[in-house]
Amino acid sequence: MTMHPCNTSERLDRQIRFIIEIDKLKTIRRQTLIMDGSRRENDAEHSWHTALMAVLLSEYAADTSLDLFRVLQMLLIHDLVEIDAGDTFCYDDVAVLDKYDREKKAADRIFNMLPDDQADYFRRLWDEFEERETPESRFASAMDRLQPVLHNYNTNGETWRKNGVKSGQVVSRNLTMKQTAPKLWDFFSDLIDKATRKGLLKK
Amino acid sequence: MTMHPCNTSERLDRQIRFIIEIDKLKTIRRQTLIMDGSRRENDAEHSWHTALMAVLLSEYAADTSLDLFRVLQMLLIHDLVEIDAGDTFCYDDVAVLDKYDREKKAADRIFNMLPDDQADYFRRLWDEFEERETPESRFASAMDRLQPVLHNYNTNGETWRKNGVKSGQVVSRNLTMKQTAPKLWDFFSDLIDKATRKGLLKK
Repeated sequence: MTMHPCNTSERLDRQIRFIIEIDKLKTIRRQTLIMDGSRRENDAEHSWHTALMAVLLSEYAADTSLDLFRVLQMLLIHDLVEIDAGDTFCYDDVAVLDKYDREKKAADRIFNMLPDDQADYFRRLWDEFEERETPESRFASAMDRLQPVLHNYNTNGETWRKNGVKSGQVVSRNLTMKQTAPKLWDFFSDLIDKATRKGLLKK
Repeated sequence: MTMHPCNTSERLDRQIRFIIEIDKLKTIRRQTLIMDGSRRENDAEHSWHTALMAVLLSEYAADTSLDLFRVLQMLLIHDLVEIDAGDTFCYDDVAVLDKYDREKKAADRIFNMLPDDQADYFRRLWDEFEERETPESRFASAMDRLQPVLHNYNTNGETWRKNGVKSGQVVSRNLTMKQTAPKLWDFFSDLIDKATRKGLLKK
């Protein structure tokens, strides 16, 4: 039997090469531990978890016309740039300085592996996520930031304690949630109070 | 400071407990290796990858009115039952015999952790996925089954060779794709031919 190149278009080839490339997201380790505390989480697991959280918690979005389908797509691709740029610990004041430049360069390479229309589509979606100016990107961002808080709280504050993170830093990083999902913000605030009383976070 | 139990409803508590419970999906290992060959993939990574594949490849769906949002939600939850039932190797003829019973029992427990309306919603979605009778569940299933084929092909057929898998078994398992996404089926058929010629699959 012979290959039939006419069956596999250049377009599909690019899409498949992209699907293979993004497998690397499974090797990008985050600071967060998985809930059983056995090892650090990777970006692919985190992306899955935040997307499913968005489905489960969308009823708490202040904007009732939220396009959840758009939120899901955003969360599925939001960390792909870390394949090149690596995971930047959000409370590392030095590493965050050039984070956006590193990630922008990564976005240029990674999304451009796709056919032009899809490259454009996902790049715009990623830009939107980064800018956090639409209800969808704000809600997606709230999920992205709440997820590691749940993990840290449920793994005895491992990453927080190791890095001497202060409660004010976590509150400030999650501030978008206050307008975007007020009821989740109340839940989050209680959790941070509890974590601080337990000594998992510095005052 | 004290906790404010009035802020955290029973409903949100159940949703958060579910979000914590499903973290276990990150510990359920599949037969498939990740593309760099370094270790076996887990169900959370697989779920993320298949969901993003669905977005990237939806243009090949024969049904042009496919509800991709529904497909995404299906793929995000399709393997949650494996938290209790474990991953069943699809070419293990003995293990597959009681697979559905084990997974149904798992679905009863896991989805019922959620508030009733969400438990119902996700259980129906999972049932739909399992039955493969709607365009959405057929396309989701095609992604679920194509993904490990890409992984096996790109890791020198490791899992196929170890288990003496025949090309006919892989073709038969992916047959839904033929009607659901004909162009992907052509691509898949070429890949299987190539894998067989290379000796990664038995004839």
